[in-house]
Amino acid sequence: MGRPLPVIAITLGEPAGVGPEVVAAALKHPRLPKGFRYEVLGSTSGVRPGRPTRRSARIALAALEEGVAGCRAGRYAALVTGPVQKEALAALDGGFPFPGQTEFLAARCGVPERQAVMAFDSPRLRVALLSTHCSLREALRRVTPAQLRHVAGETALFLKRLGIAKPRIAVAGVNPHAGENGLFGDEEARLLAPAIRADPLLSGPHSPDTVYWRALRGEFDAVIAPYHDQGLIPFKLASFHDGVNVTLGLPIVRTSPDHGTALDLAGTGKADCRSTVAALRLAAKLAGKPNRT
Amino acid sequence: MGRPLPVIAITLGEPAGVGPEVVAAALKHPRLPKGFRYEVLGSTSGVRPGRPTRRSARIALAALEEGVAGCRAGRYAALVTGPVQKEALAALDGGFPFPGQTEFLAARCGVPERQAVMAFDSPRLRVALLSTHCSLREALRRVTPAQLRHVAGETALFLKRLGIAKPRIAVAGVNPHAGENGLFGDEEARLLAPAIRADPLLSGPHSPDTVYWRALRGEFDAVIAPYHDQGLIPFKLASFHDGVNVTLGLPIVRTSPDHGTALDLAGTGKADCRSTVAALRLAAKLAGKPNRT
Repeated sequence: MGRPLPVIAITLGEPAGVGPEVVAAALKHPRLPKGFRYEVLGSTSGVRPGRPTRRSARIALAALEEGVAGCRAGRYAALVTGPVQKEALAALDGGFPFPGQTEFLAARCGVPERQAVMAFDSPRLRVALLSTHCSLREALRRVTPAQLRHVAGETALFLKRLGIAKPRIAVAGVNPHAGENGLFGDEEARLLAPAIRADPLLSGPHSPDTVYWRALRGEFDAVIAPYHDQGLIPFKLASFHDGVNVTLGLPIVRTSPDHGTALDLAGTGKADCRSTVAALRLAAKLAGKPNRT
Repeated sequence: MGRPLPVIAITLGEPAGVGPEVVAAALKHPRLPKGFRYEVLGSTSGVRPGRPTRRSARIALAALEEGVAGCRAGRYAALVTGPVQKEALAALDGGFPFPGQTEFLAARCGVPERQAVMAFDSPRLRVALLSTHCSLREALRRVTPAQLRHVAGETALFLKRLGIAKPRIAVAGVNPHAGENGLFGDEEARLLAPAIRADPLLSGPHSPDTVYWRALRGEFDAVIAPYHDQGLIPFKLASFHDGVNVTLGLPIVRTSPDHGTALDLAGTGKADCRSTVAALRLAAKLAGKPNRT
């Protein structure tokens, strides 16, 4: 008998959403990575598509707990998470005091929330966010030199694990035209420029309204966005069907399809599994690589 | 002799930039609108491509003054402005105390700056901004119910002048996921939702990270973006080469190609004139229509 294959765990997410059907389709997909065993966490027994309940939310949460525990214990090489329904999780006894799965996983890994970096990967564009689920006003407060250094470091590691020896990482400005030399805001000069100058892999601060277009043309390997929507708007335009959400800065490998539960599609078989296939492929690529250099 | 043709004025913008060559190319372009006479304002005599000077900036400013004065006097049916070099204008005696041409034109038309609405048009996407050239922090302060009502009214008028009888205007949220029901910020509920409910042409507040994708698929005729980059990032991705900047809320028709002076390209003949052709076509379309209903 040979060495047992490494295992990638996949949670179904909210079982009343499209998670179960996209996972099932992905596991039969010709582009499913070879050389791994896949373990599905969650269940659809007794669940009505499109109708999340306390019971279905409990199934989703239990799968997530099992997935992260298994990764931490070394049973799983990576965790791919299906989409959850936040309202359903929040209604559970004890609630779900996290804005999303990323923050939950950070907590379970014993890592401060800000250390978990939300990043997005597709064949055309990669973005990493300085902050995740918070108001735009709060996101402006979270733009700090320390956070930029942290996200830049994690992004560089991620790109190296993908085989890019000398990553070209663009840092986007906070303000229109990256502040137009201080005319519209000073975050660029005060908070971003010093950290950029100190790191040879970084360039910028670039004008937000053209840096994503330049990245799509191949000028950069990734763009660091100072707030959620600046990165997510171009990412979804460029990669709506095959984008992958990847969490950097955790001691485990975690990816996720970049879509929600799509309750209106659940059970129709119309949901697109490409994003889940891409999430499995990225998880497989990262699973073999050391998490730290 | 027939009735004289209406005149569209075109400024060359900074004569050391690509303005002169894209205007020359546009005026020979097969898609140049018929039924108008074109008057070019500005001059390249003595100007070295790629090298803006005080002299070249004075030429650019004089053309702009002449253009707006001619529109206001009724000599011109519309004004199409080439790109200027802000630093060169700012270095003139007396300076150029405006963040851009839009704000200059508002001042010359005797209109408060916030009344001039910066909007962008292309065959695939249209966006209108609640605020223009200011820091993101300041843009958050400028999100008000009154400004949304103003921009919505101007956007609806613009779309009707383009022949869309019942425009579908999406209002994008300020925060990630449009605030996720108040979890991340309250601008949506407090500042946007009441004005949206009061206007049957408006919908939203929509999640910023998907509303532009939906607009590109044809779900909306225009999206109102609460700050500059939220609208400009998707617009430039969707319409880099043929986007048009149009100023709403002025007593004159003004459009502009959606690019800068591109000093590095000036004189090479490589600059793309499609955006200028599109600006001339939009100006022609609007020139025949009343500015107010």
